[in-house]
Amino acid sequence: MSEPPAAGPPVFARLTLIGIGLIGSSVARAARETGAAAEIIACDGSAAVCARVAELGIADVVEPDVRLAVAGADCVMLCVPVGAMAEIAATIAPCLAPGAVLTDVGSTKISVMRDVGPLVPAGVHFVPGHPLAGTEFSGPDSGFASLFEGRWTLVVPPAGTDRDAVDRVSALWQRFGAMVEVMEPAHHDRVLAIVSHLPHLLAFTICGTADDLADETRQEVLRFAASGFRDFTRIAASDPTMWRDIFLNNREALLEMLARFTEDAQAMARAIRWGDAAYIEDKVMRGRKIRRSLIDLKQA
Amino acid sequence: MSEPPAAGPPVFARLTLIGIGLIGSSVARAARETGAAAEIIACDGSAAVCARVAELGIADVVEPDVRLAVAGADCVMLCVPVGAMAEIAATIAPCLAPGAVLTDVGSTKISVMRDVGPLVPAGVHFVPGHPLAGTEFSGPDSGFASLFEGRWTLVVPPAGTDRDAVDRVSALWQRFGAMVEVMEPAHHDRVLAIVSHLPHLLAFTICGTADDLADETRQEVLRFAASGFRDFTRIAASDPTMWRDIFLNNREALLEMLARFTEDAQAMARAIRWGDAAYIEDKVMRGRKIRRSLIDLKQA
Repeated sequence: MSEPPAAGPPVFARLTLIGIGLIGSSVARAARETGAAAEIIACDGSAAVCARVAELGIADVVEPDVRLAVAGADCVMLCVPVGAMAEIAATIAPCLAPGAVLTDVGSTKISVMRDVGPLVPAGVHFVPGHPLAGTEFSGPDSGFASLFEGRWTLVVPPAGTDRDAVDRVSALWQRFGAMVEVMEPAHHDRVLAIVSHLPHLLAFTICGTADDLADETRQEVLRFAASGFRDFTRIAASDPTMWRDIFLNNREALLEMLARFTEDAQAMARAIRWGDAAYIEDKVMRGRKIRRSLIDLKQA
Repeated sequence: MSEPPAAGPPVFARLTLIGIGLIGSSVARAARETGAAAEIIACDGSAAVCARVAELGIADVVEPDVRLAVAGADCVMLCVPVGAMAEIAATIAPCLAPGAVLTDVGSTKISVMRDVGPLVPAGVHFVPGHPLAGTEFSGPDSGFASLFEGRWTLVVPPAGTDRDAVDRVSALWQRFGAMVEVMEPAHHDRVLAIVSHLPHLLAFTICGTADDLADETRQEVLRFAASGFRDFTRIAASDPTMWRDIFLNNREALLEMLARFTEDAQAMARAIRWGDAAYIEDKVMRGRKIRRSLIDLKQA
C-alpha cells in the first residue's frame, strides 16, 4: 500500500480530461483542490455537458474540439466509456504532444490496451489506469473532489512503459488520496469481473426479473422492497452505456465468473430443495467471514 | 397506506417478547419509547442473552422460562428464527392467557401458519406479522427503537381471525412508526421471495464464489472490493440461522424466483457472448427505471 504524499508542486502542467461525467468531473475537482495540475482542460462530446462544465467552473478551459483540447497537454486522461476509447484515441493521436502521458479510467484493461495501445504515437507514454471509485450517479454535477480518497486506483502499464510516466500517473492519484497498485491487465480484468462486473450483472438482472413479474406483483415489489432489493437497485442505477461497454469488453472473465456463480447458485438451490440445512448455513457463514475480512481491511 | 396514530394509551398491558435479537430488542425499545406496552417481558433461550438484556435494561422483566414469561401476557410476540417457532409454540400453548394475542415477526408466513397455527388454543388470537426492517447486525445490542419507522409491516391473519386482534397488532406496529398492510400468506411469501430472499441468496452465493477462487485472487477480491461487491457483502453479513430457516421455509417461492432469475442471467450471458449491445443496454435501463420508482415511493 502506497502512502499518499503531502501536497506539493503540480504533477502535470496541463491536464486534459476527455469525458466529463462522474469520474472526469471528480478528477477536475480533485486536481484543482489538490493543485495536482497547473491547468485543467475539459472536453466532452456533448455540447450540453460542455456548457454545464463551464457553468460549474470546475475547469480552467472548456474546449469541445478534442484535437484542440489535447494540444500542449502533458497529461491526457480518457474518462469515457470503454467502448468509446478507440475512436477518440484515433482522433487525438496526431495532436498529442511529444513526451505527453496518455492515461484512462476505464473499467476493463485488456480492451483498452487492445483498442488504444496501437494508436499511441512514439514518444507518448501510455499508462492505463482504473480508479475503483464511483457512485450510482452520472454527469458533471455528480462528481466531487473526495471521490478517490482512501480508494484503490489500479495502474496497468504495458510492458516497457517509461518508469517516470508510471510514477507521475501514480502520483496524480495519490495526490487525490487514492492508494495505487500496479497490476497486469489480465489479472485486473479477472479481479474486476468478480468484485464489480458480476455484482452489477446480477443487480441489473434481478431488476429485470422483478420487472417481468405480473403487474400486480411488480407494484408490490416496489412497495415492499426490503433492504436486500434496495441495495441491488442502488447498484443497478448506474450508467447504461458505461455498463454495456464494460460487459462487452470484459466478456471472457465475466462469463467465467458468471458460470462459476451459476454453478454455486444451483448447488444452493439443490440444498434448499432437499433441505440440506448444514450446506445452507455454511454458505451464509462464509458470506459473514468475507464481510468481516472487508471490515478488517477497512474497505467496508 | 396507514397513517401512524399519535401516541396514546398502551396497546397491550403486558407484552412478552420471545427471542431478543435485532428485532426482539428493537421491539422492546420501541414499545418502551412509545408507551405501546405497559409492561415488557423479555425471554430468550440463551442465558447470555438474558443476562445482557437485563444489563441493557430494555425490558421490565427478564424471564428465561418461556412458560412463565407468557403467563398473563395479553400479547406474545415470537421473535425467533422461523425454524424455531413450532417448538416454542408447543411449549407455550397451554400457558397462554385466554383472549391473548399471539403474533410473530417471521420472514416466511405459510410455514408459520402451518407450524404454529394448529397449536394455538381456542380463545387465543393468532395474528402473524412481518416487519420489513432489519440490518446486517444481530443480537440484543444491535436493536434500536426507530428500526421500524417509515417501513412496512405486513400482517397476515388466518381467515376468520378476530378483527379486534388484527387491529391491535396493526396499532402496535403503527405506534412504532411502521406502515401496515394486511396480506394473504401465499402472496406474502412470493413478494418476499423476490424482494428479499432471492437477493440474500445471491449475496451469500457470490461471497462463496469469491471465497472459492485461488488464494492469491481471493486476497485481491478483498483488497479491491469495489462498491458492487461491498454492497453484496453487507447483505451477506446477516444471521446464518435466520437465513437458513427462511430459505428452507420459503422453498417453493424462492426456487421459482431463482429459476426465473437464472433464465434471465443466462439470457444476459448469451447477449454478452454474442455482443448484443441493445439487449444489455435495455436491461441496464430497466434497472434504472425500477430504482427511480423506488425513490418515487420513498423506499430508497
